[in-house]
Amino acid sequence: MNETRQRRAGGRAARQAARMQAVVESVPFLTRTLAPVEVLSEEGLSLIEENAETILERVGIEFRDAPDALQLLGDAGAEVEGERVRFPRGLARRLVQATAPREFTQIARNRDRNVVFGGQNTIFAPAYGSPFVRDLDGGRRYGTIEDFRNFVKLAYQSPWFHHSGGTVCEPVDLPVNKRHYDMVAAHLTLTDKPFMGSVTHPQRARDTVDMARIVFGADFVDENTVVFSLINANSPLVWDATMLGAARAYAEANQAVMMTPFILAGAMSPATVAATCAQTLAESVAGMAYCQLVRAGAPVVLGSFASSMSMQSGAPTFGTPEPALVLYVMAALARRLGVPFRSGGALTASKIPDAQAAYESANTMQPTMLAGVNFVLHSAGWLEGGLTMGYEKFVLDADQLGMWHAFCKGVDLSDNGQALDAFLTNEPGTHFLGHPHTLANFESAFYRSPVADNSSFEQWELEGANDAAQRANAIWKRALVEYEQPKLDESTEEELSEWIEQQKASFPDSDV
Amino acid sequence: MNETRQRRAGGRAARQAARMQAVVESVPFLTRTLAPVEVLSEEGLSLIEENAETILERVGIEFRDAPDALQLLGDAGAEVEGERVRFPRGLARRLVQATAPREFTQIARNRDRNVVFGGQNTIFAPAYGSPFVRDLDGGRRYGTIEDFRNFVKLAYQSPWFHHSGGTVCEPVDLPVNKRHYDMVAAHLTLTDKPFMGSVTHPQRARDTVDMARIVFGADFVDENTVVFSLINANSPLVWDATMLGAARAYAEANQAVMMTPFILAGAMSPATVAATCAQTLAESVAGMAYCQLVRAGAPVVLGSFASSMSMQSGAPTFGTPEPALVLYVMAALARRLGVPFRSGGALTASKIPDAQAAYESANTMQPTMLAGVNFVLHSAGWLEGGLTMGYEKFVLDADQLGMWHAFCKGVDLSDNGQALDAFLTNEPGTHFLGHPHTLANFESAFYRSPVADNSSFEQWELEGANDAAQRANAIWKRALVEYEQPKLDESTEEELSEWIEQQKASFPDSDV
Repeated sequence: MNETRQRRAGGRAARQAARMQAVVESVPFLTRTLAPVEVLSEEGLSLIEENAETILERVGIEFRDAPDALQLLGDAGAEVEGERVRFPRGLARRLVQATAPREFTQIARNRDRNVVFGGQNTIFAPAYGSPFVRDLDGGRRYGTIEDFRNFVKLAYQSPWFHHSGGTVCEPVDLPVNKRHYDMVAAHLTLTDKPFMGSVTHPQRARDTVDMARIVFGADFVDENTVVFSLINANSPLVWDATMLGAARAYAEANQAVMMTPFILAGAMSPATVAATCAQTLAESVAGMAYCQLVRAGAPVVLGSFASSMSMQSGAPTFGTPEPALVLYVMAALARRLGVPFRSGGALTASKIPDAQAAYESANTMQPTMLAGVNFVLHSAGWLEGGLTMGYEKFVLDADQLGMWHAFCKGVDLSDNGQALDAFLTNEPGTHFLGHPHTLANFESAFYRSPVADNSSFEQWELEGANDAAQRANAIWKRALVEYEQPKLDESTEEELSEWIEQQKASFPDSDV
Repeated sequence: MNETRQRRAGGRAARQAARMQAVVESVPFLTRTLAPVEVLSEEGLSLIEENAETILERVGIEFRDAPDALQLLGDAGAEVEGERVRFPRGLARRLVQATAPREFTQIARNRDRNVVFGGQNTIFAPAYGSPFVRDLDGGRRYGTIEDFRNFVKLAYQSPWFHHSGGTVCEPVDLPVNKRHYDMVAAHLTLTDKPFMGSVTHPQRARDTVDMARIVFGADFVDENTVVFSLINANSPLVWDATMLGAARAYAEANQAVMMTPFILAGAMSPATVAATCAQTLAESVAGMAYCQLVRAGAPVVLGSFASSMSMQSGAPTFGTPEPALVLYVMAALARRLGVPFRSGGALTASKIPDAQAAYESANTMQPTMLAGVNFVLHSAGWLEGGLTMGYEKFVLDADQLGMWHAFCKGVDLSDNGQALDAFLTNEPGTHFLGHPHTLANFESAFYRSPVADNSSFEQWELEGANDAAQRANAIWKRALVEYEQPKLDESTEEELSEWIEQQKASFPDSDV
């Protein structure tokens, strides 16, 4: 029985491997060939930069409950008044440009999966932060650590994710003050892709670094970036103590952070594209300047998350034209500043993986890719404005990421791509289906979607008249059955596990 | 009762008008502000042009059962051998560039709705040619003239369509040889937007022009383009007699045609992007050269319709990366040639308006808009590879067209757009919701989707947990109830109606 199982598994694995070789060119990150799309001229971009400087100079940024930030920024030449920090024109920008790396590498447990942030590179990570999960079978429910592990496994298995992400869903079944141990452990053991750390408390950030030290080695972590984390501003124009504390913990350890204003335009910024961009730039640059003062050269990423708003209900809206324009502009501003850029994703307000979800997600992912985003959080799974992580949505979105891998290769102008010989050996009116050129390109000519149904109406009806979500349901279930854990040194895994148990035992559970 | 109905209608119409004024800036066609996205360098584009010339020179194009074409092209310097026409390098291109207009105007019955083809302009038209229709209530069924009229009405009512299109669905309940009368009559009477003519027989093309003469006046039609029509190549490298006959009929009457290779790559062209582009260019340029020889200066459009193919089943696949690349390249080639360009649309292989449909449609519409397509056929309604016109899909797609109207305005850099005063009068940490700047921009700040659900999960559940298609269902039904026919001179309508009856009575029904 065991042998049979093994043989079957071997056969399946072999078939899978063969399929992968034929179709998938697995890459540690995407390298775009297309020049970024620009929606503003140099003059327009300069104007927004000047407005950001005006905001920093005349309004300033509040660094709340963060005396160290006030001290550092004051010493660097900013004008500190209470918790308000006003930056003389150009100061914050100079602080960032002086020491922040233009590109940096995050080391993965599997070194073949190291990712390089910046330039023409794009890194895909799953969605982040949902308290709920949803699948077709169980509907919407609170996320658990099992769901968390499932999404880590799914992102590990897909060749289209370069990064394991962070809080792929909230494991609500674990105490708030200890769940980071299990989340980070999942990223360190169930996958060998790079990952994101905890940011809900400075101590949890330090715990993340400690856990990375166990797996990567303490010296190695001091010299390399192995953790990447999401630090959100409290817009408008506020950085709070929790986020600054986490950012400080990571920067001190030379680990990377993305300083990201999360802006619902119209509420957390004025309701226009140009204003939202100026504010995003001001907030992020101020945050990155702080990180550079904590440790010069600590890797930082300019983050931008901007949604439009329903002016009736105040609810965030996604996939609309205005956030797409913000995204294009912010990508250009990050390039001009000279730091890697994070934005975009498969964003939607839809509760379910329907046409709204796909349209809104595509409307965000297209600018994400064409603007040249370097790190794409929320690239799969996101539903309901981020409140829900969807299993089927994850599969549907991952398929789209696969398509971007094909698109980013651009147009093949090799002799085979031009196919002149094929034309010269084929008569008008004769199909190319049986032509040697077609047969030679059969396997790799076109991206193959595992989710799309391209069969006849009759065949589709015969197979149950399923929609895309129903097909996606079968795909994630099969993937979880086929999952195999990547190798990790047994003693390391034990050491990590023991360390976590000790930490957990050392203080009581709490839900804050 | 009648009075009540009228009052209610007046109230509704007034509300609708007010809503429109507030949100919709109705435009006869879109004017893009963004420079077209280029995926190939000048050298790459030249290479593909050279390959097209090689195809035209060494393989040639067959003009089948079209002695007039062989005569005209032979006289112009092409080498004619049987039905094969080989073009000395550069000849076909020169014939097009010598006389084809770079831009032209199609006059609409309502002159405010005239559309200008070319340049930075984009014109949206509904999907074309489906034998089936689908809605949530009745499922999939053969299209009827009632369905046809419904889609003409829906496209008329929406501010996002600039063009009424042509065969919005096949009215299968009418005889094949007479249905064009009712189709063209619908476009001439139920809407006042510009429209497309019949191409299934040269006589039906002439009938279309005759009907236009009744409505626009014979002299006016001789001097102006009032009909625009779709002429498909029979790829690879064949133009057939029916299509050439229709093209000739229109070109002789100075009416516009788009010469469009319809290519399922891998079957009707080699399975690569560069080869599909070279072939599309060769076929279209040869067809346009013919039109210019029929009548120098007749308006022509370079058309491209390219899909990828499932290499397992041979079925067309949509929304994949390769056709997107073809689209970007062809748009650039049309600009270099100097004629307007048609491509793209909301294409999908999905049978229903689900996530697959939306993802595939968006993946085609994004390149459509960013590449700078001038005429977008199939911009709404298309399902199942074009076999089905969907009512709900039409509504969902139309919403996306609305978003493109907002996107194409680009970033507002006015003082109001920059909103510096708002920043200078708002404290950090204070929301902008109640700020005068937000209140002043309340109505127009963000595109408002009538289909997207942005409410809370609880509210959405309370309202029936509908998906986007279910919400779309209510929208098209309401629109048909609210439809009001645009004015048309009564005697003209009578004349048209009588002429059609005479024609129909003059020969027997037939289904070919």
